[in-house]
Amino acid sequence: VVTGIGHDCAIIAPRRGEHVAWHVDDQVEDIHFRRRWATFEDVGWKAAGAALSDLAAVGARPLGVQLALQLPRELDDRSVLALARGFVRALARAGAPLVGGNVAARPRGTGLSLSVSVAGATRAGRAFMRSGARAGDRLYTTGVPGLARVGLLLLEGGERPRRGAGAAAVAKLLRPVPRLEVGLALAALPAARRPRAAIDTSDGLSTAASQLARASGLGATLDESALPRAALARAARGLGPFDATETALTGGEDYELLVAAPRAFERSRVSERFSCVGALEPGEPGTLRLRKMSGAIVPLEPTEYRHRR
Amino acid sequence: VVTGIGHDCAIIAPRRGEHVAWHVDDQVEDIHFRRRWATFEDVGWKAAGAALSDLAAVGARPLGVQLALQLPRELDDRSVLALARGFVRALARAGAPLVGGNVAARPRGTGLSLSVSVAGATRAGRAFMRSGARAGDRLYTTGVPGLARVGLLLLEGGERPRRGAGAAAVAKLLRPVPRLEVGLALAALPAARRPRAAIDTSDGLSTAASQLARASGLGATLDESALPRAALARAARGLGPFDATETALTGGEDYELLVAAPRAFERSRVSERFSCVGALEPGEPGTLRLRKMSGAIVPLEPTEYRHRR
Repeated sequence: VVTGIGHDCAIIAPRRGEHVAWHVDDQVEDIHFRRRWATFEDVGWKAAGAALSDLAAVGARPLGVQLALQLPRELDDRSVLALARGFVRALARAGAPLVGGNVAARPRGTGLSLSVSVAGATRAGRAFMRSGARAGDRLYTTGVPGLARVGLLLLEGGERPRRGAGAAAVAKLLRPVPRLEVGLALAALPAARRPRAAIDTSDGLSTAASQLARASGLGATLDESALPRAALARAARGLGPFDATETALTGGEDYELLVAAPRAFERSRVSERFSCVGALEPGEPGTLRLRKMSGAIVPLEPTEYRHRR
Repeated sequence: VVTGIGHDCAIIAPRRGEHVAWHVDDQVEDIHFRRRWATFEDVGWKAAGAALSDLAAVGARPLGVQLALQLPRELDDRSVLALARGFVRALARAGAPLVGGNVAARPRGTGLSLSVSVAGATRAGRAFMRSGARAGDRLYTTGVPGLARVGLLLLEGGERPRRGAGAAAVAKLLRPVPRLEVGLALAALPAARRPRAAIDTSDGLSTAASQLARASGLGATLDESALPRAALARAARGLGPFDATETALTGGEDYELLVAAPRAFERSRVSERFSCVGALEPGEPGTLRLRKMSGAIVPLEPTEYRHRR
């Protein structure tokens, strides 16, 4: 960062041989969060974590972040400070400096929103894209797909577990930690072991798999037996009827990584952070199938994995 | 632009010896615009123009733009298309490609907003900052300071002139054209003629002058006789009581450039686009004075030039 806050533009300087990866992401009150269950600090944290997750997906090192805050006129200073505190804590954890932004008023009662613009550095020609995967590549994901959705279901149901798997699910929803180190480790792998395509799972595992497959001109099959059904059920204890497979496939906001890689990827150290959830195959671009526990293979309809907000 | 829309990040590649200038800017309904007098196409255009103006201020060549749109659920497709049309027309005029963005829903009735993130290339070490001006430098501005404010006053008063100076004032408000060519011409000047500091006048001439002076550790005096009082009065015909000096000083949203430059600047061709409106001097950083038509010099109180929205 050559010049940060206080001028009409921030000035950033990638090193020689580096390109700039750049992304924008929004958090809108009553769409992406509710003050009923998220503190202002949570809201600030999540806005930063969600935006940085896209840098992780392309394997970029964060260079800087800008925050465009839209604050309804009735919001008090204390709330704004809490929001800022959560935001900069998430940045500090990611090693990403705040280099600028904008503060705009909103009319009373129209809710708070945050638009976050992030920039990172990638080695020229080495950023991961959604495209580039090949038929036969396997699909690997970090984390527990669907865990943030369980957190959301708990909060919407009025539950706020203090410890255990339920508490972890709520924390996952409110304070996502972008997988930046994992992304950088992936980018540093030798070509034979490196993933060929990557995406973050902010919109859920099946949407991410479909988008990656579509961009690569392929179809994909996901394995129900590879989904973390037991872990989700443990976190969801007390929720009542609960479809672990559906939640693992469609629950968004996990901010984990999904990559398509050749099998040699499994010989890398960083692959220990991933589990294999499926594979890519020739087919109508973007179509998904599910190999059920029974072994039967069924199509996953778009309605089952379309973004539901 | 190496990779645009369709991946988790856009990838941009400045040339060797270039840095990346980066800025975010928001337009919020009923704060920055009203649907009563701005069409959706106007709103889209203005969001692009306003954000690109900050690239002009640092002398950058646009590399790309990202648009984070927040759309209230009741907005119809036609309106969204008009918004997008205005936005991309302003981009096309500026030669700036759209490389990504985000679309988020907003709850019904909470209004529309646009957050625009822009990136440009500057020669390393040559971007204009607000700081760097010296005592004795003169202040030069493009355009007619206060003209957009006259347009706003006309629209708020229910007037919509079809031609002449009034129509030009309304167009200035609704369809600002960022001064990108001027910024690039300034950046290309030999050092002896080049401005030492620059800022855009989105918040009004006096606010811009104060911010530039403060960042440079100086005070400034503006000349009432140099303000375009006659041009503003012409545009404001029919408005009733009207303070041309106040409007020229405090009227925002002109998206013109204000630069601090040594006198040799006036020997450059691009200086023909500017008029001299004052000078910088030693003093409490950021303080402003006004040399009145009578020759008397009076302090300009912060309340007279603070951002009024």
